[in-house]
Amino acid sequence: MKIQAPYLLFLGDATDELSIKMAKGVADWRPELCTGEYRLDNCQVTTGLPAMDIAAAKAAGAKTFVLSFANSGGTIDPAWVPYIIEALNHDMHIVSGLHQKLIDIPEVFSLAQERGLDLIDIRHPTQSFKTGKGYKRQGKRLLTVGTDCSVGKMYTSLSLEKEMKQQGFDVDFRASGQCGILIAGDGVAIDCVVADFIAGASETLSPDNTEDHWDIVEGQGALSHPAFAGVSLGLMHGAQPDALVICHALNRTSMRGIDNRPLPTIAQTIEQNLAAARITNPDVKVAGISVNTSSVSEEEAKEICAQISQEFNLPCVDPVRHGIGAIVGNLS
Amino acid sequence: MKIQAPYLLFLGDATDELSIKMAKGVADWRPELCTGEYRLDNCQVTTGLPAMDIAAAKAAGAKTFVLSFANSGGTIDPAWVPYIIEALNHDMHIVSGLHQKLIDIPEVFSLAQERGLDLIDIRHPTQSFKTGKGYKRQGKRLLTVGTDCSVGKMYTSLSLEKEMKQQGFDVDFRASGQCGILIAGDGVAIDCVVADFIAGASETLSPDNTEDHWDIVEGQGALSHPAFAGVSLGLMHGAQPDALVICHALNRTSMRGIDNRPLPTIAQTIEQNLAAARITNPDVKVAGISVNTSSVSEEEAKEICAQISQEFNLPCVDPVRHGIGAIVGNLS
Repeated sequence: MKIQAPYLLFLGDATDELSIKMAKGVADWRPELCTGEYRLDNCQVTTGLPAMDIAAAKAAGAKTFVLSFANSGGTIDPAWVPYIIEALNHDMHIVSGLHQKLIDIPEVFSLAQERGLDLIDIRHPTQSFKTGKGYKRQGKRLLTVGTDCSVGKMYTSLSLEKEMKQQGFDVDFRASGQCGILIAGDGVAIDCVVADFIAGASETLSPDNTEDHWDIVEGQGALSHPAFAGVSLGLMHGAQPDALVICHALNRTSMRGIDNRPLPTIAQTIEQNLAAARITNPDVKVAGISVNTSSVSEEEAKEICAQISQEFNLPCVDPVRHGIGAIVGNLS
Repeated sequence: MKIQAPYLLFLGDATDELSIKMAKGVADWRPELCTGEYRLDNCQVTTGLPAMDIAAAKAAGAKTFVLSFANSGGTIDPAWVPYIIEALNHDMHIVSGLHQKLIDIPEVFSLAQERGLDLIDIRHPTQSFKTGKGYKRQGKRLLTVGTDCSVGKMYTSLSLEKEMKQQGFDVDFRASGQCGILIAGDGVAIDCVVADFIAGASETLSPDNTEDHWDIVEGQGALSHPAFAGVSLGLMHGAQPDALVICHALNRTSMRGIDNRPLPTIAQTIEQNLAAARITNPDVKVAGISVNTSSVSEEEAKEICAQISQEFNLPCVDPVRHGIGAIVGNLS
């Protein structure tokens, strides 16, 4: 499953910033993959990309029409179907990150079949996987892990890939979530895989490679999260990381989506993740700590990162404020 | 999804003991749920239950026809379809533990629809789950965990339930695998759930209950197994066990399905499982150790269990040889 660029990002009638996280991710990290965005009249948010309708996007070379917003329930509103049909009639493939499947809409399915176009439901992987084996693969792998969900694992992974490319590393970002997949053009939505195959799918995601090649595997969930730790663990075992980067967000009072559950400390997170990672890579090390410091001042951020760095004898940065060079410098 | 008893166990043309593990499990643990077994002419194995064809089973009251064998690939051989059709024509529901779905066989699907009968594909849960929350539920829960896959977690769980019932506990076995589901009549095939919902499905499996009630949750996989640890962890977090029973098989040289991977020690397994379980139940304890000693003599088994018991200051038994009373005696 390779998503063909460039994309037209369809925002539908989205009204809040969070609901277009997927569109903003790709607009921020891969603007060159997008011809623009297509907003309906009552849409109140924007990625900042040029606005264009389907015909204009087609003229600009767009190959794929992307439903790049989330809504509660993940259904495809019948009001959007005419736009999907129009995109198919302009010979565009369709990608959706929603829960309801494109292939379950009869007129969309039959038109796509007729015109030989792809319908890619990112949340419903069609690839079949084997169960994991844990056998050592060649090449180097880094996995981002977190003290919680949504602490910046994707952002940190992409920052690492960008910095490493600039420094001349042979490196690939390996996407394990919807937004990352759109950015990378491929990957596996690991939390949508059947439980038996989490580790196996993760092995497929970062295959055997040349000795000096680095895969930067986008982490999911957190080993300490009561809902998603199974996903995090299977992804980790399959990734068999040589290096971990611990991601953390300052001043969060409870784990995401759970009432009254304090976050683990960074020390606990390091210990827990190293112990789990050793199952498939006894030589795993922590390469650094990436902190989302957006809740504090520039000055405080600097101080906090310096303290953490000293406490763990590891580079600690906010990639947005400080760049991620210090962590890359610690990879060998 | 409640499977209606009694069952007719269909063994098809199975030729080895391992392939009818599911049938033997239910025949051993719940013979009262079975009218008998139905073997085709070239079938070379038996559960020991009375042989009968579909008409005879119907006359004996059978309500469900169970494809209770495994084959490589998990496909439904077209040669078996006439028997499924015959069972439907005798007003039996159909259960299958194979990978290929009953509902994907058009003539089976349409006949079942027409006659208002259930087609239950145990490996394809149709229930929709929420993501886990980790909130404390009332009642007590015990989870069986292992040093490896297939070390006797289901057997141990069922032994515990049986002994506890005899001692007057209010107790239920909660099945998380195909064979267990057939024995219990319901449950969730946890390794077949979409990864995001492992913990949530596990929470559903052992719901809120009265204060003195025990759920004995059948474990899956092993936290140290490179393929299945994600399943084990999600199941554990959702089960929020008060008590763990560690299951182990003597003299295994490599983890199941993996070359050259030594098993973890019992000490490592205890440490790893307690650390993981504390995420959703800080008060979790190990209640005992259950060892499959079938590879050694009666005398050696006694000695080894005594040694392990002394080392960990915990009851240690082979439930087949010694009963499981010693572990039940350690539950409070």
